[in-house]
Amino acid sequence: MARGGAGRIRKVSRKASGMQQPSPDRFLAALASLLPPERLVTEPERLDAYRRDHAELVTPGWPIGAALPIETGEVAAILRLATDYRIPIVPRGAGTGLAGGAAATEGAFIVSLTRMDRLLELDPDDLVAVVQPGLLNGALREAAAAHGLMYAPDPASFEISSLGGNLATNAGGLRCLKYGVTREATLGLEVVLADGRVLRTGGRTVKQAAGYDLTALFVGSEGTLGIITEAILRLRPAPGPAATLVAFFDTLPAAGRAVAAIAAGGVAPAVLELLDRTTLRAVEARTPLGLDTAAAAMLLAQSDAPGAAQQELEAIAAACAAQGGRDIITSRDPREAEWLMAARREALPALERQGVTLLEDVAVPRRRVPDLLAAIEAIAAAHAVVIGTFGHAGDGNLHPTLVFPRGDAAARGRAEAAADAIMAAAVALGGTITGEHGVGLLKRHALPASLDPVALATMHVLKVALDPWGILNPGKAI
Amino acid sequence: MARGGAGRIRKVSRKASGMQQPSPDRFLAALASLLPPERLVTEPERLDAYRRDHAELVTPGWPIGAALPIETGEVAAILRLATDYRIPIVPRGAGTGLAGGAAATEGAFIVSLTRMDRLLELDPDDLVAVVQPGLLNGALREAAAAHGLMYAPDPASFEISSLGGNLATNAGGLRCLKYGVTREATLGLEVVLADGRVLRTGGRTVKQAAGYDLTALFVGSEGTLGIITEAILRLRPAPGPAATLVAFFDTLPAAGRAVAAIAAGGVAPAVLELLDRTTLRAVEARTPLGLDTAAAAMLLAQSDAPGAAQQELEAIAAACAAQGGRDIITSRDPREAEWLMAARREALPALERQGVTLLEDVAVPRRRVPDLLAAIEAIAAAHAVVIGTFGHAGDGNLHPTLVFPRGDAAARGRAEAAADAIMAAAVALGGTITGEHGVGLLKRHALPASLDPVALATMHVLKVALDPWGILNPGKAI
Repeated sequence: MARGGAGRIRKVSRKASGMQQPSPDRFLAALASLLPPERLVTEPERLDAYRRDHAELVTPGWPIGAALPIETGEVAAILRLATDYRIPIVPRGAGTGLAGGAAATEGAFIVSLTRMDRLLELDPDDLVAVVQPGLLNGALREAAAAHGLMYAPDPASFEISSLGGNLATNAGGLRCLKYGVTREATLGLEVVLADGRVLRTGGRTVKQAAGYDLTALFVGSEGTLGIITEAILRLRPAPGPAATLVAFFDTLPAAGRAVAAIAAGGVAPAVLELLDRTTLRAVEARTPLGLDTAAAAMLLAQSDAPGAAQQELEAIAAACAAQGGRDIITSRDPREAEWLMAARREALPALERQGVTLLEDVAVPRRRVPDLLAAIEAIAAAHAVVIGTFGHAGDGNLHPTLVFPRGDAAARGRAEAAADAIMAAAVALGGTITGEHGVGLLKRHALPASLDPVALATMHVLKVALDPWGILNPGKAI
Repeated sequence: MARGGAGRIRKVSRKASGMQQPSPDRFLAALASLLPPERLVTEPERLDAYRRDHAELVTPGWPIGAALPIETGEVAAILRLATDYRIPIVPRGAGTGLAGGAAATEGAFIVSLTRMDRLLELDPDDLVAVVQPGLLNGALREAAAAHGLMYAPDPASFEISSLGGNLATNAGGLRCLKYGVTREATLGLEVVLADGRVLRTGGRTVKQAAGYDLTALFVGSEGTLGIITEAILRLRPAPGPAATLVAFFDTLPAAGRAVAAIAAGGVAPAVLELLDRTTLRAVEARTPLGLDTAAAAMLLAQSDAPGAAQQELEAIAAACAAQGGRDIITSRDPREAEWLMAARREALPALERQGVTLLEDVAVPRRRVPDLLAAIEAIAAAHAVVIGTFGHAGDGNLHPTLVFPRGDAAARGRAEAAADAIMAAAVALGGTITGEHGVGLLKRHALPASLDPVALATMHVLKVALDPWGILNPGKAI
């Protein structure tokens, strides 16, 4: 697979300066001799299915085609041709991203990893799984459960999102509060670089200190530095049955203060989620669960500490009560727990029934959660936008979701302005514009104000070093 | 502080090609107007103290001088001058590294961060500490404990090693088995780049998905990509009192099998350490603790699971017994626990009393620990070298320590050959040549055989991108 060492990058980089023009026709002709017709899509009506992810406000361009490789060698061959003919590449998994990272750009070529969906190995002794990027998170979850193990990162989309997309965005999830995000669960990667060379990082050891941490660099790089074709993921022993708590609050800041108090009090629940009134009402409207829709907010906590779950929940209940929490219910019944968690997972689909949604993903230091909640309320009022806020309050990562009527351009404009205001508020509170969804196309305009300028310049230096022709998902992430 | 954006790197890089010669005299003269004499060392007798770290087998070169900056601005000014005059820079902290990462190279200039040793902030609500690199790990440990918190990474050297060095090497430690290594405890960094620009990564949020993970890239880069001048570190609520277990085994492989069985059995102790007979005898010879020096190995486990420590230790005791473990003692007495942990921390100093030591740091997938132990035994016999093996068996990271008489060149040669054989054995078992000490100068010859060649080439591409003049700790790490 290799086509020379680092020297080649420099050589071609000089050659690239101004000489070579993109040649889409020759690129597609070369691909046609590489891939069978059913895995090389060029007809517009079939291509339409590969243009979008779940970022509804991102307008995709028209790609020149899409490939469905079934092995690393094919991905490498595609990238070698893309390099030779200067064709921008948009990699995509299941297309469930919320920031437009997988949205097609005009004239790009799509590499869909959905056919590379095998669980290559699950080793219960080493506690690792080796996966292809198209495997769904939920499929790995089930396979691990059969061995009494768990794959910790659990984005709300776990049933429909692919591990490749999870890796590209450094996806989080509900129990990441206790068990860490995708980057912490990734021990090694196989990555195809822009020029088609194949690289392997990390391995099966838990600790690795030899050289730079390329694994961490590629995770979360949103397909702009390479295409992940295989991953070694860390599994954990499945925790015992969880105990679950629900508490209702009459004001949002009170719920926020309870979150901050729980973190400061030394309790480490596996899950600590918040749903505000707008979200509660949307969930109830879609699936009547008997939630208190008069409350300003609901907190949902889960503890899986072996032998100490009840004790942890009691500490959480006390922290909630001290901040005015009421109707505090705890349960050790797994079915009831699953039902309460489902309420949380319903949040986005329920809000999506109310109109077009723009899902925010800001994160702030934990004790700033009350301030962020207050800022969101003020922004909703100032911009006259419906905002349903829910998310991973325990780690300061919230998803204020802006909802507006389809086809209402003025409302859309207000929602976009409100989203920008929410990101600015998070940054002003010492936080970030994205905790787990990534930047994609949706947030790129907000990145310069949220990152140190030298850090952003350094990211661009790394991008040029690894992708000197700029063919990998250009215009995304940084 | 900034001297232009990314464009400057490219411009100077072109200018650098062949034109500029190092000018140490002009460099030192410029520094003399920047730093007071007591913080600019050039006399050989004073310089000698800045030449070495704890890698005894690494022969350091003679530096042209050493600076002791007290603030980031001084570090930036030094690096700007180093860039202008093409002077290689060796950053150093407390000098406790075991791979020669801080060893002086001939003609280099030392930047010692020991005077930048302040705890800038400890925020018990956000659970973060903001530190300068010269602060000792143990000092942060104490400050955190005063708030009922802990900083998890605990290298055996914690009382004498600096956090900057911990960051540079991605240091591990005993309880990293449960709580993760330095990289997992680092939320953000301030870094001075080769050209003197100052960069800030990350922040105080637990989750961050905006742009590439520069934090993870700089952690573990051994001072070859930038000098860390500040870090935002993650604290955790201090766990309750731990329960401790000791078990003795009559064969090394039996102890290794017990380790693998504990991991596979779903128990997650905070600490799971191994000491072999050679190490036990060395410890007893230095500090009589009543350890069974007839045993082939001792396992030392600690659980701090709230409410479930005893239950976890019972599962560990059962796994040990099933593999022939005997004289299994468990204790919940904190003083007894501290005493048993001290036995582990005595391991290296005790072996160092027996001769010159070459401390290995290999890691393998967990179920390969018995194979690694068997390989080490065979290598010791084949090379006629005394090897005391101890370390973090629970995460597959062992420190086989080769001991030979001072001044015995033949024995030293055998030890070096045995160390190479141990690294090769770890790689053959799917492991790595360093789990937590880094590559430094000591292991650079072994790196190509242990990393994917495209990964290593990519590391060099990143190095050139961030340090185009190659002035940062040249010849180390990659």
